[in-house]
Amino acid sequence: MSFKKRIKALTFDTGGTVLDWHTGFRDAFETAGRRHGINRDWAVLANELRRRSMQAMLNLGRDAPPSYNFDGAHQFSLDAILAEEGLDVFDDEDRRTIAWDAPHSFRSWPDVRDGLARLRDRYIAVSFTLLSHRLIIDTTRRNGLMWDAILSCEGMGVYKPLPAAYTKAAAMLQLKPEECLMVACHRFDLDAARNLGFRTALINRPDEWGKAIGPQKPPPGSEPYDIELNSFLELAAFLESESLAKRKSPSAVRARSAPLDQQLLADTALIALYA
Amino acid sequence: MSFKKRIKALTFDTGGTVLDWHTGFRDAFETAGRRHGINRDWAVLANELRRRSMQAMLNLGRDAPPSYNFDGAHQFSLDAILAEEGLDVFDDEDRRTIAWDAPHSFRSWPDVRDGLARLRDRYIAVSFTLLSHRLIIDTTRRNGLMWDAILSCEGMGVYKPLPAAYTKAAAMLQLKPEECLMVACHRFDLDAARNLGFRTALINRPDEWGKAIGPQKPPPGSEPYDIELNSFLELAAFLESESLAKRKSPSAVRARSAPLDQQLLADTALIALYA
Repeated sequence: MSFKKRIKALTFDTGGTVLDWHTGFRDAFETAGRRHGINRDWAVLANELRRRSMQAMLNLGRDAPPSYNFDGAHQFSLDAILAEEGLDVFDDEDRRTIAWDAPHSFRSWPDVRDGLARLRDRYIAVSFTLLSHRLIIDTTRRNGLMWDAILSCEGMGVYKPLPAAYTKAAAMLQLKPEECLMVACHRFDLDAARNLGFRTALINRPDEWGKAIGPQKPPPGSEPYDIELNSFLELAAFLESESLAKRKSPSAVRARSAPLDQQLLADTALIALYA
Repeated sequence: MSFKKRIKALTFDTGGTVLDWHTGFRDAFETAGRRHGINRDWAVLANELRRRSMQAMLNLGRDAPPSYNFDGAHQFSLDAILAEEGLDVFDDEDRRTIAWDAPHSFRSWPDVRDGLARLRDRYIAVSFTLLSHRLIIDTTRRNGLMWDAILSCEGMGVYKPLPAAYTKAAAMLQLKPEECLMVACHRFDLDAARNLGFRTALINRPDEWGKAIGPQKPPPGSEPYDIELNSFLELAAFLESESLAKRKSPSAVRARSAPLDQQLLADTALIALYA
């Protein structure tokens, strides 16, 4: 049976892969700054907020049950950043707007809505995410998306990339890991999924950390994923195509995507860089 | 603020309230019976399968983490019934068809698809269910429904009507219980939700247990719910209406629904009756 036919469900990383958090946070910082007549490099603060809140979520639940979700991490990370940056003038309304309203209004990348709709025609399509249930509900409604289910690590009590998160996601779908295609722009997520037996699709999101940072480069010696493409539309076209199904190896698909040699930083390296 | 404006999310019981399990199970039994040239009152067996599997799910997770989900309960309940009924001739294929394929193909009641779409225009609309994630995914796709999320007790590890299930559902939505309207045809579910502070809407499903059993009667002295109506379309119309918002008490809505005095059995009594 072909690779495509064995796949029953697509499990989508959502922050970064589906949602443009950088623009959302940057704009919210900028609006708050303007309100107080302050000018800073808000794109840098947006990235710092993402980096810190991500660090607070990765592997959460390994040692003890989580005591906060990603919305909580956005809040306490923002408070810490504002204190360090001497931005105490940002009041409760600013903080709520940046840490809650902005992420619950993140826009999806332009290819997502139509691509996801096409992908969902053939496969179960679920958000499998570190973000909170409510954040996914709100952004899904705002962007006119359609998930079959939201498998938030918030509900599982264990967060990616802990192996138990992937095992639980497949179990909740009553599928074998190899029947699930993990779709993500983050290598740490795809690597963890692959270790558990998931198939893997890398979707490049060169602007995830903003245009100043630019596209990210695969770490030296990194193994290719089953599929590497540049949009949900490309993924839909690939999974719909009969002719491509006849290719010998799914890794052949990699050649169709844009050259990766201009890419600068791997996402894991990027997170470390800001540490 | 009016009752309607305080509501932010509708949490829907799904088996029975959304899905017609009786017809689905009865037809699957009948098909299997025909295959073996056996004739029985399949409607009775369908109800027995539902009754036993429900009993196995209610309050599950109170004493220990669940070791099965509702699909598992359908399977072991069916095996027990077939053994007792001398229907050992039903093979693995029959059992899989009745216990898994049939429920994953249940049809929704005729008012659900359009009513739910209208309700979702104004409110977050989630399936809050004893049934498995996968069952809701499959029936949602089959019936062209649209949920904002599936809050399955399977993912929570505690099952309705345990109070923790309702508390977790509201917490996952980041809402106060009183911002949630529990929509169900089962009184045990609405009563438990009300005890936790949810608002409540009873939707009558007179054929839930088949036409031979007929509509169910409220137990003597039962308190009315905030809303009592006969379809999702009526609920949508009520929640969309401005004029009805001016009624003094939401319980006034009860008068709009069909007379309940022809109803025969409360669902809790019905479950007991088959015990």
